[in-house]
Amino acid sequence: MGKSTCVPHIARFLGRRGIEVLSTREPGGTAIAESIREILLWSEKEALDSVTELLLNFASRRQHLCEVIRPALERGAFVLCDRFTDSTHAYQGGGRGLPAAWIDYLSDMVHPGLQPDLTLLFDLTPQEGLKRIASTRPDRYEGEGSEFLERVRESYLERSGAARFTVIDAARDEARVLADVLAAIRALLDSRK
Amino acid sequence: MGKSTCVPHIARFLGRRGIEVLSTREPGGTAIAESIREILLWSEKEALDSVTELLLNFASRRQHLCEVIRPALERGAFVLCDRFTDSTHAYQGGGRGLPAAWIDYLSDMVHPGLQPDLTLLFDLTPQEGLKRIASTRPDRYEGEGSEFLERVRESYLERSGAARFTVIDAARDEARVLADVLAAIRALLDSRK
Repeated sequence: MGKSTCVPHIARFLGRRGIEVLSTREPGGTAIAESIREILLWSEKEALDSVTELLLNFASRRQHLCEVIRPALERGAFVLCDRFTDSTHAYQGGGRGLPAAWIDYLSDMVHPGLQPDLTLLFDLTPQEGLKRIASTRPDRYEGEGSEFLERVRESYLERSGAARFTVIDAARDEARVLADVLAAIRALLDSRK
Repeated sequence: MGKSTCVPHIARFLGRRGIEVLSTREPGGTAIAESIREILLWSEKEALDSVTELLLNFASRRQHLCEVIRPALERGAFVLCDRFTDSTHAYQGGGRGLPAAWIDYLSDMVHPGLQPDLTLLFDLTPQEGLKRIASTRPDRYEGEGSEFLERVRESYLERSGAARFTVIDAARDEARVLADVLAAIRALLDSRK
Protein backbone atom coordinates (compact mmCIF):
# COMPACT_ATOMS: atom_id res chain seq x y z
CA MET A 1 0.00 0.00 0.00
CA GLY A 2 1.52 3.30 -1.13
CA LYS A 3 1.36 6.87 0.12
CA SER A 4 -1.21 8.12 -2.40
CA THR A 5 -3.63 5.38 -1.33
CA CYS A 6 -3.22 6.33 2.34
CA VAL A 7 -3.94 10.03 1.95
CA PRO A 8 -7.77 9.81 1.80
CA HIS A 9 -7.77 7.48 4.84
CA ILE A 10 -5.71 9.97 6.84
CA ALA A 11 -7.96 12.81 5.72
CA ARG A 12 -11.07 10.91 6.89
CA PHE A 13 -9.39 10.02 10.20
CA LEU A 14 -8.66 13.70 10.86
CA GLY A 15 -12.01 14.89 9.50
CA ARG A 16 -13.82 12.69 12.05
CA ARG A 17 -11.93 14.60 14.75
CA GLY A 18 -13.16 17.92 13.35
CA ILE A 19 -9.77 18.89 11.88
CA GLU A 20 -9.73 20.68 8.54
CA VAL A 21 -7.40 18.79 6.18
CA LEU A 22 -5.72 19.99 3.02
CA SER A 23 -4.33 17.16 0.86
CA THR A 24 -1.83 18.23 -1.76
CA ARG A 25 1.24 16.99 -3.61
CA GLU A 26 4.61 18.08 -4.97
CA PRO A 27 5.85 19.09 -7.45
CA GLY A 28 2.67 20.90 -8.47
CA GLY A 29 -0.43 22.04 -6.63
CA THR A 30 -0.86 25.40 -8.40
CA ALA A 31 -1.12 26.39 -12.07
CA ILE A 32 2.48 27.67 -12.14
CA ALA A 33 3.83 24.73 -10.16
CA GLU A 34 2.01 22.24 -12.41
CA SER A 35 3.72 23.81 -15.45
CA ILE A 36 7.04 23.22 -13.68
CA ARG A 37 5.98 19.65 -12.81
CA GLU A 38 5.46 18.94 -16.51
CA ILE A 39 9.06 19.94 -17.24
CA LEU A 40 10.38 17.93 -14.28
CA LEU A 41 8.56 14.69 -14.91
CA TRP A 42 8.24 14.54 -18.67
CA SER A 43 11.21 16.30 -20.30
CA GLU A 44 13.39 14.03 -22.39
CA LYS A 45 15.53 11.98 -20.05
CA GLU A 46 18.92 13.25 -21.27
CA ALA A 47 17.89 16.87 -21.75
CA LEU A 48 17.35 18.17 -18.23
CA ASP A 49 20.51 19.05 -16.29
CA SER A 50 20.51 18.00 -12.62
CA VAL A 51 21.11 21.56 -11.31
CA THR A 52 18.19 22.80 -13.43
CA GLU A 53 16.15 19.96 -11.95
CA LEU A 54 17.10 21.02 -8.41
CA LEU A 55 16.15 24.67 -9.01
CA LEU A 56 12.86 23.75 -10.66
CA ASN A 57 11.93 21.57 -7.69
CA PHE A 58 12.47 24.45 -5.29
CA ALA A 59 10.71 26.93 -7.62
CA SER A 60 7.66 24.66 -7.70
CA ARG A 61 7.86 24.17 -3.92
CA ARG A 62 8.00 27.91 -3.27
CA GLN A 63 4.97 28.62 -5.41
CA HIS A 64 3.04 25.77 -3.80
CA LEU A 65 3.95 27.09 -0.34
CA CYS A 66 2.87 30.66 -1.13
CA GLU A 67 -0.39 29.80 -2.83
CA VAL A 68 -1.53 26.68 -0.99
CA ILE A 69 0.39 25.47 2.08
CA ARG A 70 1.00 28.69 4.04
CA PRO A 71 -2.57 30.00 3.69
CA ALA A 72 -3.87 26.58 4.90
CA LEU A 73 -1.49 26.50 7.89
CA GLU A 74 -2.44 30.06 8.77
CA ARG A 75 -6.13 29.18 9.01
CA GLY A 76 -5.20 26.21 11.24
CA ALA A 77 -5.65 23.38 8.73
CA PHE A 78 -3.68 20.13 8.83
CA VAL A 79 -1.66 19.91 5.61
CA LEU A 80 -0.97 16.47 4.12
CA CYS A 81 1.66 16.91 1.43
CA ASP A 82 2.77 14.07 -0.84
CA ARG A 83 6.56 14.78 -1.01
CA PHE A 84 8.55 17.78 0.32
CA THR A 85 12.21 18.78 0.77
CA ASP A 86 13.24 15.31 2.01
CA SER A 87 12.41 14.06 -1.50
CA THR A 88 14.82 16.63 -2.94
CA HIS A 89 17.56 15.37 -0.61
CA ALA A 90 16.78 11.81 -1.73
CA TYR A 91 16.40 12.34 -5.50
CA GLN A 92 18.68 15.29 -6.27
CA GLY A 93 21.12 14.69 -3.39
CA GLY A 94 21.28 10.88 -3.14
CA GLY A 95 20.12 10.07 -6.66
CA ARG A 96 21.89 12.77 -8.69
CA GLY A 97 24.79 13.38 -6.31
CA LEU A 98 24.27 17.13 -5.75
CA PRO A 99 25.72 18.60 -2.49
CA ALA A 100 23.46 18.50 0.58
CA ALA A 101 24.72 22.04 1.40
CA TRP A 102 23.03 23.40 -1.75
CA ILE A 103 19.76 21.75 -0.80
CA ASP A 104 19.96 23.12 2.76
CA TYR A 105 20.68 26.64 1.45
CA LEU A 106 17.72 26.49 -0.92
CA SER A 107 15.48 25.14 1.86
CA ASP A 108 16.34 28.15 4.02
CA MET A 109 15.57 30.46 1.10
CA VAL A 110 12.29 28.79 0.12
CA HIS A 111 10.81 27.74 3.48
CA PRO A 112 12.69 29.49 6.31
CA GLY A 113 11.65 28.08 9.67
CA LEU A 114 9.15 25.61 8.20
CA GLN A 115 9.59 21.83 8.57
CA PRO A 116 6.95 19.09 8.57
CA ASP A 117 5.78 18.05 12.06
CA LEU A 118 5.67 14.44 10.87
CA THR A 119 7.27 12.77 7.87
CA LEU A 120 5.97 9.34 6.87
CA LEU A 121 8.49 7.40 4.82
CA PHE A 122 6.84 4.60 2.84
CA ASP A 123 9.75 2.26 2.39
CA LEU A 124 9.97 -0.25 -0.47
CA THR A 125 12.85 -1.85 -2.34
CA PRO A 126 13.29 -0.44 -5.88
CA GLN A 127 12.37 -3.88 -7.25
CA GLU A 128 9.07 -3.87 -5.37
CA GLY A 129 8.42 -0.22 -6.27
CA LEU A 130 9.03 -0.77 -9.99
CA LYS A 131 6.78 -3.85 -9.94
CA ARG A 132 3.89 -1.74 -8.61
CA ILE A 133 4.09 0.79 -11.43
CA ALA A 134 4.89 -1.72 -14.19
CA SER A 135 1.65 -1.03 -16.06
CA THR A 136 2.08 2.80 -16.15
CA ARG A 137 4.38 4.97 -18.27
CA PRO A 138 7.48 5.61 -16.10
CA ASP A 139 8.26 9.28 -15.37
CA ARG A 140 11.86 10.62 -15.59
CA TYR A 141 12.78 9.36 -12.12
CA GLU A 142 11.15 5.95 -12.43
CA GLY A 143 12.86 5.54 -15.81
CA GLU A 144 16.30 5.91 -14.18
CA GLY A 145 16.27 2.26 -13.13
CA SER A 146 17.05 0.44 -9.92
CA GLU A 147 20.61 1.69 -9.18
CA PHE A 148 19.38 5.29 -9.08
CA LEU A 149 16.32 4.29 -7.05
CA GLU A 150 18.54 2.39 -4.62
CA ARG A 151 20.57 5.57 -3.96
CA VAL A 152 17.29 7.48 -3.47
CA ARG A 153 16.12 4.88 -0.96
CA GLU A 154 19.41 4.91 0.97
CA SER A 155 19.28 8.68 1.18
CA TYR A 156 15.72 8.60 2.53
CA LEU A 157 16.68 5.98 5.12
CA GLU A 158 19.74 7.99 6.22
CA ARG A 159 17.52 11.03 6.81
CA SER A 160 14.91 9.00 8.67
CA GLY A 161 16.97 9.17 11.88
CA ALA A 162 15.43 12.61 12.55
CA ALA A 163 12.71 12.57 15.23
CA ARG A 164 9.96 13.75 12.89
CA PHE A 165 10.26 10.58 10.73
CA THR A 166 8.19 7.42 10.96
CA VAL A 167 9.31 4.67 8.59
CA ILE A 168 6.45 2.56 7.25
CA ASP A 169 7.22 -0.84 5.75
CA ALA A 170 5.08 -0.44 2.63
CA ALA A 171 5.62 -4.01 1.40
CA ARG A 172 2.98 -5.34 3.82
CA ASP A 173 -0.76 -5.60 3.26
CA GLU A 174 -3.02 -2.55 3.30
CA ALA A 175 -4.48 -3.04 6.76
CA ARG A 176 -1.08 -3.21 8.48
CA VAL A 177 0.33 -0.22 6.60
CA LEU A 178 -2.71 1.86 7.36
CA ALA A 179 -2.68 0.87 11.05
CA ASP A 180 0.93 2.11 11.38
CA VAL A 181 0.14 5.32 9.51
CA LEU A 182 -2.87 6.15 11.67
CA ALA A 183 -0.92 5.28 14.84
CA ALA A 184 1.72 7.84 13.82
CA ILE A 185 -0.95 10.49 13.15
CA ARG A 186 -2.62 9.71 16.48
CA ALA A 187 0.72 10.08 18.30
CA LEU A 188 1.24 13.46 16.63
CA LEU A 189 -2.20 14.67 17.73
CA ASP A 190 -1.61 13.39 21.30
CA SER A 191 1.75 15.21 21.45
CA ARG A 192 -0.09 18.48 20.75
CA LYS A 193 -2.69 18.17 23.49
CA MET B 1 18.77 51.97 -30.49
CA GLY B 2 18.36 48.93 -28.24
CA LYS B 3 20.37 45.80 -27.56
CA SER B 4 18.34 43.46 -29.75
CA THR B 5 18.88 45.74 -32.74
CA CYS B 6 22.65 45.80 -32.14
CA VAL B 7 23.14 42.05 -31.97
CA PRO B 8 23.13 41.35 -35.76
CA HIS B 9 25.54 44.26 -36.32
CA ILE B 10 27.96 42.84 -33.74
CA ALA B 11 27.62 39.38 -35.27
CA ARG B 12 28.49 40.73 -38.73
CA PHE B 13 31.42 42.72 -37.34
CA LEU B 14 32.88 39.57 -35.77
CA GLY B 15 31.99 37.38 -38.74
CA ARG B 16 34.07 39.62 -41.05
CA ARG B 17 37.02 38.88 -38.76
CA GLY B 18 36.49 35.14 -39.18
CA ILE B 19 35.11 34.66 -35.67
CA GLU B 20 32.25 32.20 -35.19
CA VAL B 21 29.42 33.96 -33.35
CA LEU B 22 26.54 32.48 -31.41
CA SER B 23 23.73 34.98 -30.70
CA THR B 24 21.30 33.92 -28.01
CA ARG B 25 19.07 35.34 -25.32
CA GLU B 26 17.81 34.79 -21.80
CA PRO B 27 15.58 33.54 -20.35
CA GLY B 28 15.17 30.84 -23.00
CA GLY B 29 17.37 29.50 -25.75
CA THR B 30 16.44 25.80 -25.39
CA ALA B 31 13.10 23.96 -25.40
CA ILE B 32 13.14 23.55 -21.60
CA ALA B 33 14.34 27.11 -20.98
CA GLU B 34 11.67 28.52 -23.31
CA SER B 35 8.99 26.71 -21.27
CA ILE B 36 10.42 28.44 -18.20
CA ARG B 37 10.51 31.79 -20.07
CA GLU B 38 6.76 31.47 -20.71
CA ILE B 39 6.10 31.17 -16.98
CA LEU B 40 8.44 34.07 -16.17
CA LEU B 41 7.17 36.57 -18.68
CA TRP B 42 3.51 35.77 -19.02
CA SER B 43 2.17 34.39 -15.71
CA GLU B 44 -0.47 36.53 -14.11
CA LYS B 45 1.21 39.49 -12.51
CA GLU B 46 0.16 38.79 -8.92
CA ALA B 47 0.56 35.03 -9.07
CA LEU B 48 4.32 34.50 -9.32
CA ASP B 49 6.25 34.84 -6.04
CA SER B 50 9.57 36.68 -6.33
CA VAL B 51 11.63 33.77 -4.91
CA THR B 52 10.00 31.43 -7.45
CA GLU B 53 10.90 34.00 -10.10
CA LEU B 54 14.53 34.04 -8.94
CA LEU B 55 14.82 30.24 -9.01
CA LEU B 56 13.17 29.98 -12.43
CA ASN B 57 15.61 32.52 -13.85
CA PHE B 58 18.58 30.47 -12.66
CA ALA B 59 16.96 27.19 -13.79
CA SER B 60 16.52 28.62 -17.28
CA ARG B 61 20.08 29.99 -17.21
CA ARG B 62 21.56 26.66 -16.21
CA GLN B 63 19.78 24.79 -18.98
CA HIS B 64 20.80 27.42 -21.54
CA LEU B 65 24.43 27.19 -20.36
CA CYS B 66 24.51 23.39 -20.57
CA GLU B 67 22.82 23.06 -23.94
CA VAL B 68 23.96 26.19 -25.77
CA ILE B 69 26.57 28.48 -24.21
CA ARG B 70 29.17 26.02 -22.86
CA PRO B 71 29.30 23.89 -26.04
CA ALA B 72 29.77 27.10 -28.10
CA LEU B 73 32.55 28.42 -25.82
CA GLU B 74 34.26 25.03 -25.91
CA ARG B 75 34.48 25.09 -29.70
CA GLY B 76 35.93 28.62 -29.52
CA ALA B 77 32.85 30.61 -30.60
CA PHE B 78 32.12 34.16 -29.43
CA VAL B 79 28.84 34.08 -27.49
CA LEU B 80 26.57 37.14 -27.63
CA CYS B 81 23.92 36.72 -24.96
CA ASP B 82 21.01 39.12 -24.51
CA ARG B 83 20.83 39.26 -20.66
CA PHE B 84 22.70 37.21 -18.05
CA THR B 85 23.19 37.19 -14.25
CA ASP B 86 23.56 40.99 -14.06
CA SER B 87 19.91 41.15 -15.14
CA THR B 88 18.97 38.93 -12.20
CA HIS B 89 20.80 41.30 -9.84
CA ALA B 90 18.94 44.22 -11.42
CA TYR B 91 15.42 42.76 -11.66
CA GLN B 92 15.23 40.31 -8.75
CA GLY B 93 17.79 42.11 -6.54
CA GLY B 94 17.15 45.80 -7.27
CA GLY B 95 13.59 45.47 -8.56
CA ARG B 96 12.12 42.85 -6.20
CA GLY B 97 14.46 43.50 -3.24
CA LEU B 98 15.87 39.97 -2.87
CA PRO B 99 19.30 39.66 -1.14
CA ALA B 100 22.38 39.95 -3.38
CA ALA B 101 23.93 37.08 -1.34
CA TRP B 102 21.24 34.68 -2.65
CA ILE B 103 21.97 35.71 -6.22
CA ASP B 104 25.73 35.29 -5.71
CA TYR B 105 25.22 31.83 -4.19
CA LEU B 106 23.02 30.74 -7.10
CA SER B 107 25.54 32.17 -9.60
CA ASP B 108 28.27 30.01 -8.07
CA MET B 109 26.00 26.97 -8.28
CA VAL B 110 24.84 27.58 -11.84
CA HIS B 111 27.93 29.02 -13.56
CA PRO B 112 30.98 28.45 -11.32
CA GLY B 113 33.99 30.32 -12.68
CA LEU B 114 32.12 31.75 -15.66
CA GLN B 115 31.60 35.50 -16.11
CA PRO B 116 31.10 37.50 -19.31
CA ASP B 117 34.31 39.03 -20.71
CA LEU B 118 32.36 42.15 -21.65
CA THR B 119 28.97 43.39 -20.47
CA LEU B 120 27.29 46.10 -22.53
CA LEU B 121 24.74 48.03 -20.51
CA PHE B 122 22.24 49.84 -22.75
CA ASP B 123 21.12 52.62 -20.47
CA LEU B 124 17.75 54.37 -20.84
CA THR B 125 15.42 56.10 -18.40
CA PRO B 126 12.29 54.04 -17.63
CA GLN B 127 10.21 56.77 -19.33
CA GLU B 128 12.21 56.44 -22.53
CA GLY B 129 12.19 52.64 -22.32
CA LEU B 130 8.43 52.44 -21.81
CA LYS B 131 7.89 54.83 -24.73
CA ARG B 132 9.79 52.49 -27.05
CA ILE B 133 7.63 49.48 -26.26
CA ALA B 134 4.34 51.40 -26.06
CA SER B 135 2.85 49.59 -29.04
CA THR B 136 3.60 46.06 -27.74
CA ARG B 137 1.91 44.02 -24.99
CA PRO B 138 4.01 44.62 -21.84
CA ASP B 139 5.52 41.48 -20.22
CA ARG B 140 5.45 41.00 -16.42
CA TYR B 141 8.48 43.23 -15.83
CA GLU B 142 7.47 45.99 -18.19
CA GLY B 143 4.01 45.96 -16.62
CA GLU B 144 5.51 46.79 -13.19
CA GLY B 145 5.71 50.47 -14.09
CA SER B 146 8.36 53.12 -13.76
CA GLU B 147 9.20 52.93 -10.02
CA PHE B 148 10.17 49.27 -10.37
CA LEU B 149 12.08 49.98 -13.58
CA GLU B 150 13.91 52.86 -11.87
CA ARG B 151 15.16 50.47 -9.16
CA VAL B 152 16.24 48.04 -11.90
CA ARG B 153 18.16 50.80 -13.67
CA GLU B 154 19.87 51.97 -10.47
CA SER B 155 20.93 48.43 -9.72
CA TYR B 156 22.40 48.02 -13.21
CA LEU B 157 24.28 51.31 -12.89
CA GLU B 158 25.65 50.35 -9.47
CA ARG B 159 27.03 47.11 -10.90
CA SER B 160 28.51 48.86 -13.92
CA GLY B 161 31.56 49.92 -11.89
CA ALA B 162 33.08 46.47 -12.61
CA ALA B 163 35.83 46.52 -15.26
CA ARG B 164 33.95 44.23 -17.66
CA PHE B 165 31.11 46.79 -18.09
CA THR B 166 30.71 49.36 -20.84
CA VAL B 167 27.73 51.66 -20.37
CA ILE B 168 26.09 52.70 -23.63
CA ASP B 169 23.81 55.74 -23.67
CA ALA B 170 20.98 54.15 -25.65
CA ALA B 171 18.95 57.36 -25.93
CA ARG B 172 21.12 58.59 -28.83
CA ASP B 173 20.68 57.83 -32.52
CA GLU B 174 21.55 54.46 -34.00
CA ALA B 175 24.87 55.38 -35.57
CA ARG B 176 26.34 56.70 -32.31
CA VAL B 177 25.11 53.79 -30.23
CA LEU B 178 26.48 51.30 -32.70
CA ALA B 179 29.84 53.11 -32.93
CA ASP B 180 30.26 52.83 -29.15
CA VAL B 181 29.23 49.19 -29.15
CA LEU B 182 31.67 48.23 -31.89
CA ALA B 183 34.45 50.21 -30.23
CA ALA B 184 33.91 48.16 -27.06
CA ILE B 185 33.99 44.90 -29.02
CA ARG B 186 37.15 46.01 -30.85
CA ALA B 187 38.84 46.86 -27.54
CA LEU B 188 37.94 43.40 -26.22
CA LEU B 189 39.46 41.72 -29.28
CA ASP B 190 42.61 43.87 -29.02
CA SER B 191 43.01 42.96 -25.35
CA ARG B 192 43.15 39.28 -26.35
CA LYS B 193 45.88 39.61 -28.97
